[in-house]
Amino acid sequence: MIAAAAPSKAILLLSCPDRVGLVARIANFIYERGGNILDLNEHVDVDERQFFLRVSWSLDHFSIPAEDLESAFAPLGREFRANWQIRLSGKRSRMAVFVSKYDHCLREILWRHSLGEFDIDLPLVISNHPDLAPLVEAHGIPFHVIPVTPEAKAAAEQRQMALCDEHGIDTIVLARYMQVLSPEFTRRWVGRIINIHHSFLPAFVGGNPYRQAYRRGVKLIGATSHYVTDELDEGPIIEQDIIRITHRDTLEDLVRKGRDLERLVLARALRLHCDHRILLNGRKTVVFD
Amino acid sequence: MIAAAAPSKAILLLSCPDRVGLVARIANFIYERGGNILDLNEHVDVDERQFFLRVSWSLDHFSIPAEDLESAFAPLGREFRANWQIRLSGKRSRMAVFVSKYDHCLREILWRHSLGEFDIDLPLVISNHPDLAPLVEAHGIPFHVIPVTPEAKAAAEQRQMALCDEHGIDTIVLARYMQVLSPEFTRRWVGRIINIHHSFLPAFVGGNPYRQAYRRGVKLIGATSHYVTDELDEGPIIEQDIIRITHRDTLEDLVRKGRDLERLVLARALRLHCDHRILLNGRKTVVFD
Amino acid sequence: MIAAAAPSKAILLLSCPDRVGLVARIANFIYERGGNILDLNEHVDVDERQFFLRVSWSLDHFSIPAEDLESAFAPLGREFRANWQIRLSGKRSRMAVFVSKYDHCLREILWRHSLGEFDIDLPLVISNHPDLAPLVEAHGIPFHVIPVTPEAKAAAEQRQMALCDEHGIDTIVLARYMQVLSPEFTRRWVGRIINIHHSFLPAFVGGNPYRQAYRRGVKLIGATSHYVTDELDEGPIIEQDIIRITHRDTLEDLVRKGRDLERLVLARALRLHCDHRILLNGRKTVVFD
Amino acid sequence: MIAAAAPSKAILLLSCPDRVGLVARIANFIYERGGNILDLNEHVDVDERQFFLRVSWSLDHFSIPAEDLESAFAPLGREFRANWQIRLSGKRSRMAVFVSKYDHCLREILWRHSLGEFDIDLPLVISNHPDLAPLVEAHGIPFHVIPVTPEAKAAAEQRQMALCDEHGIDTIVLARYMQVLSPEFTRRWVGRIINIHHSFLPAFVGGNPYRQAYRRGVKLIGATSHYVTDELDEGPIIEQDIIRITHRDTLEDLVRKGRDLERLVLARALRLHCDHRILLNGRKTVVFD
Repeated sequence: MIAAAAPSKAILLLSCPDRVGLVARIANFIYERGGNILDLNEHVDVDERQFFLRVSWSLDHFSIPAEDLESAFAPLGREFRANWQIRLSGKRSRMAVFVSKYDHCLREILWRHSLGEFDIDLPLVISNHPDLAPLVEAHGIPFHVIPVTPEAKAAAEQRQMALCDEHGIDTIVLARYMQVLSPEFTRRWVGRIINIHHSFLPAFVGGNPYRQAYRRGVKLIGATSHYVTDELDEGPIIEQDIIRITHRDTLEDLVRKGRDLERLVLARALRLHCDHRILLNGRKTVVFD
Repeated sequence: MIAAAAPSKAILLLSCPDRVGLVARIANFIYERGGNILDLNEHVDVDERQFFLRVSWSLDHFSIPAEDLESAFAPLGREFRANWQIRLSGKRSRMAVFVSKYDHCLREILWRHSLGEFDIDLPLVISNHPDLAPLVEAHGIPFHVIPVTPEAKAAAEQRQMALCDEHGIDTIVLARYMQVLSPEFTRRWVGRIINIHHSFLPAFVGGNPYRQAYRRGVKLIGATSHYVTDELDEGPIIEQDIIRITHRDTLEDLVRKGRDLERLVLARALRLHCDHRILLNGRKTVVFD
Repeated sequence: MIAAAAPSKAILLLSCPDRVGLVARIANFIYERGGNILDLNEHVDVDERQFFLRVSWSLDHFSIPAEDLESAFAPLGREFRANWQIRLSGKRSRMAVFVSKYDHCLREILWRHSLGEFDIDLPLVISNHPDLAPLVEAHGIPFHVIPVTPEAKAAAEQRQMALCDEHGIDTIVLARYMQVLSPEFTRRWVGRIINIHHSFLPAFVGGNPYRQAYRRGVKLIGATSHYVTDELDEGPIIEQDIIRITHRDTLEDLVRKGRDLERLVLARALRLHCDHRILLNGRKTVVFD
Repeated sequence: MIAAAAPSKAILLLSCPDRVGLVARIANFIYERGGNILDLNEHVDVDERQFFLRVSWSLDHFSIPAEDLESAFAPLGREFRANWQIRLSGKRSRMAVFVSKYDHCLREILWRHSLGEFDIDLPLVISNHPDLAPLVEAHGIPFHVIPVTPEAKAAAEQRQMALCDEHGIDTIVLARYMQVLSPEFTRRWVGRIINIHHSFLPAFVGGNPYRQAYRRGVKLIGATSHYVTDELDEGPIIEQDIIRITHRDTLEDLVRKGRDLERLVLARALRLHCDHRILLNGRKTVVFD
């Protein structure tokens, strides 16, 4: 058996009401214990008087063991009335991907995961359909089919959550998962479920928005990746982008271009999340990229 | 007095129900009279079975006088049940700019007009406020103040239309003109009034959309230039673009970035219109750029 | 045995010295035989007095069999001293992909091919290394290893060309193939070999351009897809794009971002090529997108 | 006479060899004197072991007068062997614009300056040609013509520098100024002269690069804004962007599109500079945007 390497780096994400001295106090906490700051970003939301910080530091000459870091920082966190978390290098995010039948976002994730682009473990994929099992299993990743019907949705979500708990999942990616999660589900996973959907200028409500966008003659289509809240498609936005459209593009072209956009925007959002670069600020995000 | 140079080039814009032989018949019309085609673009809307054409040709060895061109083409236009227009080089569009108090779009137009970037005459600017008179008059362009009040709106529009008629205006640009035109006005100028407005992903209804976008934490803001119809901000889209936003951008930054975007998107739309590159297709445009 | 469906559509790509009546003559050729033009694009290079045309038409009521089309058009092609080719729907391009060890461009092509995004057959992949065999063979595509050494390069190219001939290949894609093809090879395949490479502002010569770009502190990196000629990386450009870089990007980030860009730019170029939307114009391309 | 308002905010820009405790020491310096940090960005160049910091803080309850801030910080700066500067709000950059005959970049600067978009004073414009005097003087800004000839270049630069000194200029913008500054000039103004030039993929050397880009058939043209060093066009890059080109664009179109790009890229670079968001890192920049 091989012992895990000691973590070489820590990342603190913190938000709290703004006050004088926050950076100094936190930087001192690190400095007094021999940590060398590698990267620090700070933002103050002046309207809300809220303070946001991301700081990473080297643990090479740190005077306390990594496993004691959280308890050492806890008094400061309490004093600042902060939301905070500390991530140690070597401790990867554990991600579950939820899919239905579309494969483009899933493929992008699997490919980048195989390249090591995301600093994650990906121990399972859950789907309400069996179609994508061969693709997932070819990557050596277990694929779980949990059908979802209107009448048995609650039970299906119980099974999903049990699987996620069992595998120590901390992040769920909805890679074109075509079911709406219940408020019970989303509230348990605040800031930890990432979704991707198309977006249009102007926005279109109702079914088949690509068809509506096509009929409206838009010159751009977009995609938005966001954290899921119990307001459908209204959670804090992580990343957005667009692609150009002309009158020569058919409805099929729009769908194809949208597909390309969705997988890239989702991949960028996942990378930001896995690098612990995102803080929630009410309905918004602070993204230290 | 100097005689106007004979036009050297003609541009035909035509749309009609699709049928076999349209390109051949029109190309023959030009060829038989000695015209050399410089540029031809064609598009068929397969859903609507509608045909769209833009063709320009040299009049250097053309066998009929330019002034007889329209009557010579008219029989074909009738046979094809077409909407069509022929533009001769040297005959410039005559444009009126409507403004209120914001100057950024107006400045962009004045500057590009002074560079000769638009192939237009710009004989007047009309505003419901006097503020921008010095800017316009410094360019030697007459500035007309026509106040608009709810009770006297119809009379104000009568004066606007009379001024436009008097100056032979064929295109009206709403360069951040903050009044809604009446259906009577817009129906008289179908496909000839160009507007610019911000657009957001997602869209925001109600007042102060920049504030709403700021509060929503969008990562992109957009601008849309379109022809004005009697559906507010719903006319056929000519051009759109976006600019990126981060959590560091204040509401003022959003407004500033939006301003930059609006003037550039409007300028691109005007250029396409003045070059006769746009055909209407119901609620959409065909843009032969 | 199933008979192949009769082709429903023809595409003519043609370039020749400009003269009066080209569009009319070609449109008449189609019209007189009962063809309905679906899409026509025309461009005149005024400097070079060269004419470029792409026209597609329906063969539904065409009066001559598709297999006689080339011989029927040949007299016009001769009269115009034109380079031309006619492509029939249903007759797909046959593409060979050349790779070395990098898989990102190959994966993108395989995935899009599996989605039917390219209208091609992909009967073989050729590599100078065995590494990517499993990936290719998992898609059911034969993988041929042809090692290339400086002393045996000519023989290796003979084997490559023999394989391409044997499989009726008409387009070769260099998907990060790290060998320079000989002039004998490239001259035989003019306008039919597509390459992708990084590009930078400013350009960097010599080894490891990503490192040079990193040291220079560029804010953008780019990728260029082009036809291969015997001038290395100097052939006619099909498509280019860029991605933004900041001081926070490490050399690894540049390489990763460049990889994303290369596969997307190459995919766009391949799609344009397979849709027969590209004409060569000396060192340039005319792209009717 | 009105007394100047006391500055409400200070910005420190600092770079030095990396070591443990830099952020803590600097944050403490601010905290101990009652300053509230508004914004802090930090970057470590791991290759060069160099530390970069930008921090702004409120002076509302600061315990020492703003005029003593530099002397108070000097001991820390010495200890860290740092390059550093402190900017006080209310103390604006004083900028001189150098132009020749092109007006597009100058107009953009004048317009944004009139909107208050740049936090600068603009007390003079210097040109080697008289052409743009009316435009500048219409904005109430003195315009100085200093002709530059090969034989009298040194004398002309002496006059330019004398004017800049006399007006307390700290930043020079070369807004399409078509003369090469001597090394004597550029070394005196390291990190304080900002230039804009076109850039292309691939790069073109020699005269008339737009013509070369046109002949090469590029699909993108770019613009780069950078600090001027004695290596022509090789100084640290601040900002770059590109615009798309097609085969339909004439040489004139390239020049027009390049003009649009240049003025926008230069404006973005100036804004970053005037907001004190840029640090030099050898041949690179660190841009805290």
